[in-house]
Amino acid sequence: MKVKKVPDIGIIREAAARIQGLVHNTPVLTSETINQIIKAKIFFKCENFQKAGAFKSRGACNTVFSLPDDVLKYGVATHSSGNHAQALARAANLRNIKSFIVMPGNAPQVKINAVRQYNGEITFCKPTLAAREATLKDILQKTSATEIHSYNDYRIIAGQATAAKEIFEKVKDLDIIMAPVGGGGLLSGTALSTRYLSPGTKVIAAEPANADDAYRSFYQGRLIPSVNPDTIADGLLTSLGSLTYPIIRQFVDEIVTVSEENIIKAMFMIWERMKIIIEPSAAVTLGALLENKLNIKNKRIAIIISGGNIDLQKIPWINK
Amino acid sequence: MKVKKVPDIGIIREAAARIQGLVHNTPVLTSETINQIIKAKIFFKCENFQKAGAFKSRGACNTVFSLPDDVLKYGVATHSSGNHAQALARAANLRNIKSFIVMPGNAPQVKINAVRQYNGEITFCKPTLAAREATLKDILQKTSATEIHSYNDYRIIAGQATAAKEIFEKVKDLDIIMAPVGGGGLLSGTALSTRYLSPGTKVIAAEPANADDAYRSFYQGRLIPSVNPDTIADGLLTSLGSLTYPIIRQFVDEIVTVSEENIIKAMFMIWERMKIIIEPSAAVTLGALLENKLNIKNKRIAIIISGGNIDLQKIPWINK
Repeated sequence: MKVKKVPDIGIIREAAARIQGLVHNTPVLTSETINQIIKAKIFFKCENFQKAGAFKSRGACNTVFSLPDDVLKYGVATHSSGNHAQALARAANLRNIKSFIVMPGNAPQVKINAVRQYNGEITFCKPTLAAREATLKDILQKTSATEIHSYNDYRIIAGQATAAKEIFEKVKDLDIIMAPVGGGGLLSGTALSTRYLSPGTKVIAAEPANADDAYRSFYQGRLIPSVNPDTIADGLLTSLGSLTYPIIRQFVDEIVTVSEENIIKAMFMIWERMKIIIEPSAAVTLGALLENKLNIKNKRIAIIISGGNIDLQKIPWINK
Repeated sequence: MKVKKVPDIGIIREAAARIQGLVHNTPVLTSETINQIIKAKIFFKCENFQKAGAFKSRGACNTVFSLPDDVLKYGVATHSSGNHAQALARAANLRNIKSFIVMPGNAPQVKINAVRQYNGEITFCKPTLAAREATLKDILQKTSATEIHSYNDYRIIAGQATAAKEIFEKVKDLDIIMAPVGGGGLLSGTALSTRYLSPGTKVIAAEPANADDAYRSFYQGRLIPSVNPDTIADGLLTSLGSLTYPIIRQFVDEIVTVSEENIIKAMFMIWERMKIIIEPSAAVTLGALLENKLNIKNKRIAIIISGGNIDLQKIPWINK
């Protein structure tokens, strides 16, 4: 069963009500030092403090908790090496249903442990998209579980949209709201909430230059898949989807690309100045401001810090 | 001019009023996962989010902003390689007076930069206590500045006491409150606030086993200086002072020692589970709970996370 309608504000409000108590209304933090460096007023929405360590818990909870009774008994399934795997396993565990997670054999141990902690049943496969899809297809046939795609699903998008909704409830008169873009679930949800709740606020997405499929799709006006992306922002390797792309094309104002150097520089700056741990994918937005391509002087800017799941044995600025 | 009286609750309340707006009332965070691991309910008071990155801003602001007019014009001075240096430079800068900071030549660049950012005038010396004291004496003579000791001063102690006061205002029915102990400024302040505001709460201090002068002083009943301490908790190398020791001896219930292994384990746990950056000295308290020496099952425990200033190039669990 797929939802066929782009989420309107009523659907986003329903999502917010549905996931209340299941996820955190995460804090919005500021840093005087970073404001001085960037010469703007930045409000960081800290989804690194979200349940399971990333915004993905919003969409996963919204989807799992809106499943009709007849699918509950077969559970849910997905392929993911990242934050969606943990978030879906956690949501299913809360709902008391099974979750089947296809993960590449080279997934970090910390992510495997997290999925297991939430009673997710893991099937390992080769680390290629083809192998992941084939293995998932097999699992779906064997179990009759419902596939929950990590971003190309309106229920997921409505769930991710609640992060921006919470920002607008807390911070007024924002000139700009920024989110990173991978598959586009967070970005399309953010764009929808902004259109409904703060239409005067510009939506700007940031993407690694080394994985710039959304940038090229947006400006060339057609969905271009990601080919051999190679970036430290491992949450942003995926391509836009058939549902996320049209929303982004219509409601996002700008997409900017960011060098690996500035992603790492921004991540270091947030760790050092704000004393919070964010993953590389979450640093791409501040990285975009460091690139100096945007006119942001004295602007009020919300940035969604997408997650904090990083292998603490592998810090990007430390060469082992 | 030295204050001669152990701070009573009125003096601690005055300190809280004086530093309001100059320092943060930092958040109290919890982690379900850590509660499950420790089998207790822990409330982390996050002084890593404090101005200048540590609780030291409380004592420094209280002291600098209570200075009488006649000493203002000569400024303040101290020797410190750590958080007190930054905190004092910042407080003096806010008060528009000069600060003279004696630092060992091997102090981390990040701390030197922080002092300079607050217009502190740095004098470098050899990295020995004797050299630091001699250099400071020289500076005091040359400048007529007022020495502000990092912990052995009742105004500093009253300032540090405000952290526990904020905890008791936010969290009720605490069985235990814990702080790390180095020179004893934070611990003695914490003990005083607890005696006045929550006398039924036990005060337990944690100290690295490799720098256990407070532990030995406390249980042997005499002030024993620290000799060649060697611990990763670089904020806890100092010895108790003539003012902090008697307060600790009278009002602290227990001091426990912690292995280097458990300090690092606790630090990693907080980084990974809570997504916040804390310095090694701030991990000694949770490390003490990991040692399993204390009877804490199902207890409600406040832990003061003392600071978050760490050289991010040197992560203890990563061998370069």
